[in-house]
Amino acid sequence: MQLDIGNALDSVATPGVSTDALDRLDDAVADAHETIAAGMSNARFGYASLNLPETTSAAGIERAVDSIDADAVLTVGIGGSALGAKTITAALGEANHFLLDNVDPEATNRLLDALDFESTAINVVSKSGTTAETLANFLVVRDAYEAAGVDWTERTVVTTGESGPLAELAAEEELPKLAVPDGVPGRFSALSAVGLVAPAILGYDIEAVLDGGREARDSLTESIDDCPAYAYGALAVALERRGVHTNAFMPYAEALEPFAEWFAQLWAESLGKDGQGQTPARALGATDQHSQLQLYRAGRHDTMVTLVRPTARDDREIPAVDVEGLAYLGDATLGDLLDAEFEATEASLAAADKPSIRVELDRVDEHGIGDLLVSFEAACIMAGELMGVETFTQPAVEWGKNAARGLLGGEETAEAAAVRDKREYRIE
Amino acid sequence: MQLDIGNALDSVATPGVSTDALDRLDDAVADAHETIAAGMSNARFGYASLNLPETTSAAGIERAVDSIDADAVLTVGIGGSALGAKTITAALGEANHFLLDNVDPEATNRLLDALDFESTAINVVSKSGTTAETLANFLVVRDAYEAAGVDWTERTVVTTGESGPLAELAAEEELPKLAVPDGVPGRFSALSAVGLVAPAILGYDIEAVLDGGREARDSLTESIDDCPAYAYGALAVALERRGVHTNAFMPYAEALEPFAEWFAQLWAESLGKDGQGQTPARALGATDQHSQLQLYRAGRHDTMVTLVRPTARDDREIPAVDVEGLAYLGDATLGDLLDAEFEATEASLAAADKPSIRVELDRVDEHGIGDLLVSFEAACIMAGELMGVETFTQPAVEWGKNAARGLLGGEETAEAAAVRDKREYRIE
Repeated sequence: MQLDIGNALDSVATPGVSTDALDRLDDAVADAHETIAAGMSNARFGYASLNLPETTSAAGIERAVDSIDADAVLTVGIGGSALGAKTITAALGEANHFLLDNVDPEATNRLLDALDFESTAINVVSKSGTTAETLANFLVVRDAYEAAGVDWTERTVVTTGESGPLAELAAEEELPKLAVPDGVPGRFSALSAVGLVAPAILGYDIEAVLDGGREARDSLTESIDDCPAYAYGALAVALERRGVHTNAFMPYAEALEPFAEWFAQLWAESLGKDGQGQTPARALGATDQHSQLQLYRAGRHDTMVTLVRPTARDDREIPAVDVEGLAYLGDATLGDLLDAEFEATEASLAAADKPSIRVELDRVDEHGIGDLLVSFEAACIMAGELMGVETFTQPAVEWGKNAARGLLGGEETAEAAAVRDKREYRIE
Repeated sequence: MQLDIGNALDSVATPGVSTDALDRLDDAVADAHETIAAGMSNARFGYASLNLPETTSAAGIERAVDSIDADAVLTVGIGGSALGAKTITAALGEANHFLLDNVDPEATNRLLDALDFESTAINVVSKSGTTAETLANFLVVRDAYEAAGVDWTERTVVTTGESGPLAELAAEEELPKLAVPDGVPGRFSALSAVGLVAPAILGYDIEAVLDGGREARDSLTESIDDCPAYAYGALAVALERRGVHTNAFMPYAEALEPFAEWFAQLWAESLGKDGQGQTPARALGATDQHSQLQLYRAGRHDTMVTLVRPTARDDREIPAVDVEGLAYLGDATLGDLLDAEFEATEASLAAADKPSIRVELDRVDEHGIGDLLVSFEAACIMAGELMGVETFTQPAVEWGKNAARGLLGGEETAEAAAVRDKREYRIE
C-alpha cells in the first residue's frame, strides 16, 4: 500500500496539516509504535491481531475444509464474524459467496428459496457461540437444508471459541471446527479462520492473502515518512483534531465496496468512544461523484475523503463511436475513464480546499486485499493510540443486546423496561 | 409513512428540539409549504417532481416496453439515472435487475461474462444523452451483445431528453424512447420513466408505485403535526442547526438498502451547499448494530439516526432448540427478533442521549416504496426551503466533469491543468 498525503497538507486544504505538525506527530507515532510493537511481541489483547499473518496456518484451514465439496458458500455470522470473509471474497470477484448477516425474514426467505443446498457449504461463525442473530439464522438454515433432504452435517464448517453451544454442536456432529484466535477482536479477525474459511472452500489462494498481510506487517516502522499504514492513522487523527469528523471512504473499484464496509466497522467500533471518533461514510467511485461529491465539495469543512485505487487492473476497450462530442471516449478504455475521474475528483476536492488522502495498492487480488486489511488495522491501532481510546473493546453495544434479550426472552432487564418507557410523539 | 419524533425531543436527546421550538418551526413550515404548493401548481423547476405521481402515465410506460420480452433488465445509467430504478426493484425483492452505474472495467467484465444476453433487456438512461460513464458503458454493452450474436436493438429502451445522441440513436434504430420529464432533476425522477421502465419490463405493478406516491403527495399539509414528510425535513434541519451534522439512515429491511443509498444522494446533492448540509451515512439494521452503533452511542453528539421499518412483513419461524441460554429464540420468529433489535437500538440511542427519528411504512411493496420516495422528496424540499439553499441544482460537481473531460479528451481545460499540478507527498 502506498499513500499520497499531499492534498491533506495545510498548503492545499482547510483544515489541513502543516509539515511542522507532521514532524511533531512523527514523535508521537514513534512512541506509539513502541507500544504497538511490544503488544505484538507479547501477543497482548488486540495487538495480537497484527500477528495473524504469522500465526494463522493456511494449510491448517485448508485441511479442515478439505472434506467439503462445494461450489458456493453461505456464511452465517454478523459484524466482524461476516465482514472479513465477505471483504476477501468480494475483492476476488467471487459471486457465489452468500451471507446471512442480518435477521430480516423476507431477505432470508428469498435467499433460501434461491439457494442450491446440495452445492452450498455452510460457514457458521460466532466467537461466543451464542450471538442471537447468528444462532437464529443457523437454526433456520439447518432446518431449510433438512426440509430439502440435504445433509447439512456433511457441508458445515464451524468457527467458534473453545466452548459454547457451537463448539458443543461441532463435537456432537463431528463437524470441522476452527478456532477464533485468542486476543483478537472480531473486527480484527479477517486474516484468521473467521475470514479465510469461505475463500478456502471456494478454492482461493489464502496463503497469498496472508502474504499480503505479512508485507503490511513487515512495513510497520517508527516513522510516518516510510510507513503508509501509520501515516494514514496519524493523519486521520490530526485532521480529526482540526475538525474533520467524517471520513468518506471511497474506493475506485467495485470489488472493494465491502472493504469500505469493513473499514467502516473497524473505524467506528474501534475509535467511536469517549465523545471522539470519525464517522465513516461509505462511498464508491466513480458512482458517488454523481451523489455525494456535491456535499463533499460544497458542504462543511468537516470531511476528509479517502480515495483508494489499484494501480493495475484488467481493462476493457470502449468501442469507437462516430458521434460529435463523444468521439473522445472511443480512444480510451473504461480504466482510463475511471482513472481520469479519480484524479479529477481528487483535484476537485483540493480546488474546494477539502482534504483528501490517496491510497494505492498494486492490484485487487489475494495479495492486495491481505495488504490492505492489515495496513488499515495498523492504521486504526495507531489512531487509537494517538487518541488515547480503548481500541479493542465495544462497550456501548451491550446496552442494546441486554434490551433485545429482555424483550424477546421475557427476562425483565432494566434495558427492556426502558424500551417500554419510550417517549412517543407520533405524526401520522 | 408515519413518524415518531419522540426521541428527537430535548427531553430525551442532546441536542434535541424543544416543543416550543417545534411550534416556532411550524410557522416556518407553513410558509415553506406555500412556496412548495405554488411551485407544484406552476410546475416550477424541481417542485414539478412532486407532481410525477399525477403526470407519469403508467400505461404509457407499459405500452412503450410492451414489445420487450425479457426475464432480466440491465440498467445503464449513473446517479439519479440509476438509483431510482434500483431502489424500486430492490424493494420488490427482484434479483434480476443488473446495473452498470460505474466504469470499473473488472466489474463490467464480470457482469457481462455472466449475463444471459438473450433474455436481458437494456434500459439506458441519460437526460443529456452525453453522460460519459453511461455512454461508455452503453457502447461496451452494445458491442458485447453484438459479439454474442444477440440483436440489442430488439431489447433496448432509451430514456432521455428531447435531443442529444441517445435521442438520435433511438430514432435511427427505432427503439422505444421515453422522456425524462421536464423540470425534474435526476435524483427526483424515480417516479417517472427513469425509475419505472425497469420494474415495468420485469412485470411489476408500477401503477401501485404511483399510487403510493400519490398518497404521500396528498398528505402534504401546512403543519408538522399531521405531515410526516415535512416533519422529517423540519426536524432534520432543526437538529442540524443544533450541531447534528450527520444523518445515519438505517432501514431495518434489506430490501430498503438501496433506498438508503437513494436517500444519501437526495440529501447530499440537494442540501450539501453553502457550507451546510447533513452528511448521510448509510447503515443497515440489524447488521450495523455490530458495526456502527458503538460510534453512534459513544461518539460525538453530532449524529441523528433515522430508523426505518415496515410494520408488516412476511416472516419465518426460528426452529425450537434445546440449548441452555438459546431456548428463548425458539419461541420467536426472525421478524420478532428484528423488531426487538429495532426497539432496543432506538432505546439504546435515547439512553445515550442521542437523537433518533422512527419512520414506519406499512409494508415494503409497490405502494410502500412509492410512498417513501415521494415522502422523502417532500422532506428534502422542505429542508431546502428552511435552509435557504438551491435544492434542485448541483453546481459543485461540474468542476470534476470538466477536469475528466480535459484529461481524457485532450481538451486543455483549466481544471485538467489543476489536476496535473497536484501537490505530491508520497509515503511508500
